[in-house]
Amino acid sequence: MAALPEAVTQLLAALNNLPGIGPRSAERLALHLVQVDPAIVRQLAQALLQARERVKSCGRCGALTEQSPCLICTDDKRDASLICVVERAVDIITIDKAGKFRGRFHVLGGKISPVDGVGPEDLRIDLLEQRLKSEPVREIILALATDVEGDATSYYLSKRFASQGVKVTRIAYGLPAGSGLEFADDLTVNMALEGRRELT
Amino acid sequence: MAALPEAVTQLLAALNNLPGIGPRSAERLALHLVQVDPAIVRQLAQALLQARERVKSCGRCGALTEQSPCLICTDDKRDASLICVVERAVDIITIDKAGKFRGRFHVLGGKISPVDGVGPEDLRIDLLEQRLKSEPVREIILALATDVEGDATSYYLSKRFASQGVKVTRIAYGLPAGSGLEFADDLTVNMALEGRRELT
Repeated sequence: MAALPEAVTQLLAALNNLPGIGPRSAERLALHLVQVDPAIVRQLAQALLQARERVKSCGRCGALTEQSPCLICTDDKRDASLICVVERAVDIITIDKAGKFRGRFHVLGGKISPVDGVGPEDLRIDLLEQRLKSEPVREIILALATDVEGDATSYYLSKRFASQGVKVTRIAYGLPAGSGLEFADDLTVNMALEGRRELT
Repeated sequence: MAALPEAVTQLLAALNNLPGIGPRSAERLALHLVQVDPAIVRQLAQALLQARERVKSCGRCGALTEQSPCLICTDDKRDASLICVVERAVDIITIDKAGKFRGRFHVLGGKISPVDGVGPEDLRIDLLEQRLKSEPVREIILALATDVEGDATSYYLSKRFASQGVKVTRIAYGLPAGSGLEFADDLTVNMALEGRRELT
C-alpha cells in the first residue's frame, strides 16, 4: 500500500502482536500516534520501557512488584495466616481490587496439565511448601479456574498440603453477583447447587 | 491498590489515553507488557518513537509520509487530473486500500464548522487552489462525511471551484455493499433513493 509510510507499517506490526488489539484497532492507534503531540509518544515509550525494566516477580509470592519481597508480603497489616493461591500474577490484582481479602498470595505460575507436559515440579509449589515452614500459615485458599487443569491442580494441592496440618479450602463457584438463573450456563447452575449453604 | 507497582500504574495511565483503549484493555495490555520478553517492549517503544519522528505531512497533499512530496504525489502512474478531497490524512489510506482510485489526494484537515469556529481559511483550501494552477487537474472528487459540516464544506468547495473550470463531484452515498435494506437507517435509505441511477 503506497499510502502507508514504512515507519507506520512497522509500528502496525508491533501493535498487532499485542493481546486484544486487532488489525482495525492497531491501524487506528498507529495513525493516532503518528499525528499526536510527540511528547505524548515519548511519554508512552518511556512508560513502556520503565515498566518492563522495573517490574519483576516477588521472589516469595510471585506477584508483580518493583521490590522483592513485594509490598503485600511485607505488609504487617495483612493476615500472614492466610495464603490465597492463584494461577497467574495478574489474578492477585483481580482479588486485591475486590477489596475483601486481606491475607497474602502465592502465584503457581500455571496449572498441572499432563497434556501440555506441566507437572507439579514445573509450578511454584515447592516454594509454597517452604513458606509453610517460615510463615505462620493456617489456611491455603485455592482460587483456580474450574476447568479440568484447575480442578486437577486443586485436588493435587489439597492432597499434598492437607497432611501438613494446614487447612486447604477452595473459593466458591456459583451464580455471579447481580445475575439471575436465566443467564447462567449448566455448569454454573450445577456448581451453584452443589455449593449451596444453609441459611441461618 | 497495593498490588499494582507504580511503574505499571504509570503505564496504565499512558495507555488509557489512547483512542479505543478502555480501562480493561489498558490493564490487560499493561500486565502483558511487563511480563513479556523485554526485547518485544524495546521493539515497540522503538517503533513508536521512530514512527512519530519520521512521519510528517506531505507539503502538497497533506498525506502522512516520510518524504515530502509524498509517494502518491510523485507517482507518475497516478492520474494527475483527478484529486480526491478528504477530511483527514487517514481517509487517504481507506480509499487507497480499496484499490480502485488511481488519482491523487488532498487533505482538508477538517470541515467547515461555524459552531466550532472553523472557517474555509482554517482548512487547506488555498493550497488546493494553488495545486489547480500547477497541476493538470480536471476533476475534484469530494469524499467528505454526510453530516452537516461535511455537506456545508462540500457545498462551499463546489461553489468555489466550479467557477474555475474544474469539474467538482461528490462520492455516492447509499446502501453499503453486501448489506440489505433491513439494516439501513432512514438517512441511508433516503440517500440511496436520491442517488439512484438508470440501468442501461
